[in-house]
Amino acid sequence: MFRNFKVVSRVVFGRGCFNQLDDIVLENRKEAGSCMVFLVDDVFKNSVLERRLPLQKHDMLLWINVDNEPTTAYVDQLTRRIRSHVEVDSKQVAGGVIGIGGGSAMDLAKAVAIMLTNPGSAADYQGWDLVQHPAVYHMGVPTLSGTGAEVSRTTVLIGPQKKLGINSDYTVFDQIVLDPDLISGAPGSQRFYTGMDCYIHCIESLNGRFINMFSRSYGEKALALCREVFLNGGPDEDDKLMMASYFGGMSISYSQVGICHALSYGLSFVLGIHHGIGNCIAFDRLEKYYPEGVREFREMLERNRIQLPRKVVADLDEKRLEKMIDVSLILEPLWQNALGSDWKKKMPREKIKDIYRQM
Amino acid sequence: MFRNFKVVSRVVFGRGCFNQLDDIVLENRKEAGSCMVFLVDDVFKNSVLERRLPLQKHDMLLWINVDNEPTTAYVDQLTRRIRSHVEVDSKQVAGGVIGIGGGSAMDLAKAVAIMLTNPGSAADYQGWDLVQHPAVYHMGVPTLSGTGAEVSRTTVLIGPQKKLGINSDYTVFDQIVLDPDLISGAPGSQRFYTGMDCYIHCIESLNGRFINMFSRSYGEKALALCREVFLNGGPDEDDKLMMASYFGGMSISYSQVGICHALSYGLSFVLGIHHGIGNCIAFDRLEKYYPEGVREFREMLERNRIQLPRKVVADLDEKRLEKMIDVSLILEPLWQNALGSDWKKKMPREKIKDIYRQM
Repeated sequence: MFRNFKVVSRVVFGRGCFNQLDDIVLENRKEAGSCMVFLVDDVFKNSVLERRLPLQKHDMLLWINVDNEPTTAYVDQLTRRIRSHVEVDSKQVAGGVIGIGGGSAMDLAKAVAIMLTNPGSAADYQGWDLVQHPAVYHMGVPTLSGTGAEVSRTTVLIGPQKKLGINSDYTVFDQIVLDPDLISGAPGSQRFYTGMDCYIHCIESLNGRFINMFSRSYGEKALALCREVFLNGGPDEDDKLMMASYFGGMSISYSQVGICHALSYGLSFVLGIHHGIGNCIAFDRLEKYYPEGVREFREMLERNRIQLPRKVVADLDEKRLEKMIDVSLILEPLWQNALGSDWKKKMPREKIKDIYRQM
Repeated sequence: MFRNFKVVSRVVFGRGCFNQLDDIVLENRKEAGSCMVFLVDDVFKNSVLERRLPLQKHDMLLWINVDNEPTTAYVDQLTRRIRSHVEVDSKQVAGGVIGIGGGSAMDLAKAVAIMLTNPGSAADYQGWDLVQHPAVYHMGVPTLSGTGAEVSRTTVLIGPQKKLGINSDYTVFDQIVLDPDLISGAPGSQRFYTGMDCYIHCIESLNGRFINMFSRSYGEKALALCREVFLNGGPDEDDKLMMASYFGGMSISYSQVGICHALSYGLSFVLGIHHGIGNCIAFDRLEKYYPEGVREFREMLERNRIQLPRKVVADLDEKRLEKMIDVSLILEPLWQNALGSDWKKKMPREKIKDIYRQM
């Protein structure tokens, strides 16, 4: 059985296309009085971007904070806030959610769009294909590129017990707005770490066992674009990085990430390390598994003058290290993609611990 | 303004995924008694593929003939046949159309799906964004790769006065099933000419004025895949050709084809030459405009032992030649993409005639 892959069905790409947001939203304002919820990364408070948001009378602007990785509790809290806002006037319905920001902001928007139509807590849906009801209309507007969150069928959340995505066809955005101008203002290191998320997941998927030609075609081009951006640069680099992220996300359709992402999930859960930087910290210790990729990654580090944090795990207490290993081991498909069906033999806990201790 | 590009929202890719057709169709059989119409290229009559069609009680199997390029009259005729079939039992509705075949078969399926919900003749909708009502559910299953018809927002038809596509968001398939096994049986020259459609439209879009990074990323990868297929070959070549076609089609999103396609439309209209071979005949005479592309194309001709038809226009009577020029000149966006807004100055009728006379 091959997955019947759900693709984001509407894409606008172009410098300045953010200006079309009002028109695009308008088409999706179904009922008079329906409310669009703008979930926007709070780094944009009082920015030019804030003034460009096409807010209308009934709309709701929710600033979201992603200093920490998104949690299921935060999703539940945002969902409650939207529900109570909507209840003020019973004619209103939440007609859609528009997420503006990096991977975390987009993931929050996807999760909230799901939770507006599904009962319980977001934590109930962490896993694969657990969502029962279609989400409300949701749109992603990336202001950082690399995660592939704009096209993926997952929204990765830290729950009470684990870091795991809500993987579902309903998670996929209905619309994405790809404006390379929006990513040009990101701080250099954040841009780098997020971009490396794309680079690393291409290396992992292209070297994995699940790959097919659909995913390979996307992955190879995403990788080539990452190389152009992080080894050469140039005037089109924002356009290229945005496309690398989109292609990188598409390449996951029929493949999977691998060891690095599994380890990175543990780092995030136990130490609160953000996904992009966590990937970089882990990848730097995986030369044995991805030799060429790690060599090229180090060249990228150097060219972009990035100093990786060191000794983040080395002195960690045993209990927390064990939890880190537990979290990484939940990601079975990732290990299987990287090492095959006998991955448990090839990667006992002690070996994972050794790798973590080098970080 | 950038186009809000409509993408095929469901894609299955994989060798043997045609076996999942029944499951995929099942999800889209909305009402009891609703009828799925299978439009299948009649080369598959009495073939293994015919026996694999998941036909159910109320379904309709229509063999279609594409010895000639699809016409608006043929679309109207097929639509009438489906309507009268459905009227036999008033409970029935045509719930969807499934096109199985090459670019012509897929174009017919797209056009019929539109005409089942729109009044008048298909000829009324040749042009850009003229369709008023959404089509019925429609699925494309390519058995030849290269045209990009599986992802494009057009269905190219020969009408009473012109060869022109029905370009509309409603034209886009809801689902495509990409099974590389299905294209492995095509005759060598047909496979080559159809594949060259992809190669040529990549050359035209990458060298055109409309291109942006979205289209460029797709176009460059499609071109690279075409090179692998037609210069090297190898065990994965069907997978690669299928992806080349998909990427080539996607690359047209924000770009356009160029001179070769414009001329090829004239060849088809007046001489009934099929699109793929028409492109090759025209491209071979465009070294001045696409020097590297034409050189490489000739290398591909040689490696694949293809003998291009010669002297197809050279001795044509003046009246028909003039009509050929008329038809090619309708494609304004193509000329503009290739030559700029002053294309009419750069390409007077006499110059077009000279190029045609060399074919």
